Amino acid sequence: MDEYLEAAINEAKIGLQEGGIPIGSVLVHQGKIIGKGHNKRVQQKSVTLHGEMDALENAGRQPASVYQESVIYTTLSPCPMCTGAILLYGIPKVIIGENRTFMGSEKLLRENGVEVVVVNDPTCVKMMEEFIEKNPSLWNEDIGEP
Amino acid sequence: MDEYLEAAINEAKIGLQEGGIPIGSVLVHQGKIIGKGHNKRVQQKSVTLHGEMDALENAGRQPASVYQESVIYTTLSPCPMCTGAILLYGIPKVIIGENRTFMGSEKLLRENGVEVVVVNDPTCVKMMEEFIEKNPSLWNEDIGEP
Repeated sequence: MDEYLEAAINEAKIGLQEGGIPIGSVLVHQGKIIGKGHNKRVQQKSVTLHGEMDALENAGRQPASVYQESVIYTTLSPCPMCTGAILLYGIPKVIIGENRTFMGSEKLLRENGVEVVVVNDPTCVKMMEEFIEKNPSLWNEDIGEP
Repeated sequence: MDEYLEAAINEAKIGLQEGGIPIGSVLVHQGKIIGKGHNKRVQQKSVTLHGEMDALENAGRQPASVYQESVIYTTLSPCPMCTGAILLYGIPKVIIGENRTFMGSEKLLRENGVEVVVVNDPTCVKMMEEFIEKNPSLWNEDIGEP
């Protein structure tokens, strides 16, 4: 498997071990991981630190040129908020572990010229299926559903 | 002036006093402010805590029903990331201090059924005009521009 998707999955697993929602992400600039992150809703009571947001946050303040040469990997299809962050910073490519358990704003990404690759990796699918089955209300909270 | 927009402006002023970017926001649920925030790029080296994001973060974990009965006030037209957060949580109404110094994703909000009110308040306009004139590179960084 792609080493960067593997690193994103590893972040998701760290989140799960912490009692959190297993979604991870890494930001890759010219082949180097410059930010790793995972969903922090449970751990930090954060409503903004989805996996992708946490990876961006941990990459720190970067010039626009760095984002524009980067690829973001995420284990799950990006929600509207994470999609908006990708568009704000002009990240040109998103690699998505899976979109079977949740379909994010991939259409909006593509409409804005972002290259979107969906791997549909079985590990990512299984991790979310098991989590959602055990924690339906927590999962609904994370995606703004009643 | 509307007391909630005034509270958002006050948040922006706090940000400016801290040496940060003067953009503030409040989340209002059934007439009560449940979260206040301001841009934290400088103060916390945060690339995700725009004013609206900080207000949402400070409101803490809320059920979907609360967001769906809330109004978010922001001193400046919301960028794609903040727009995405508003859409994720299903906040039905956004009151914007001004959109003259920066036009955010108001079209996307409206296309998704969000009520958008633009006040074009002179205090908000002046605050951003002065800030951008003095700090053009910091401002560009905040909106992902080179």
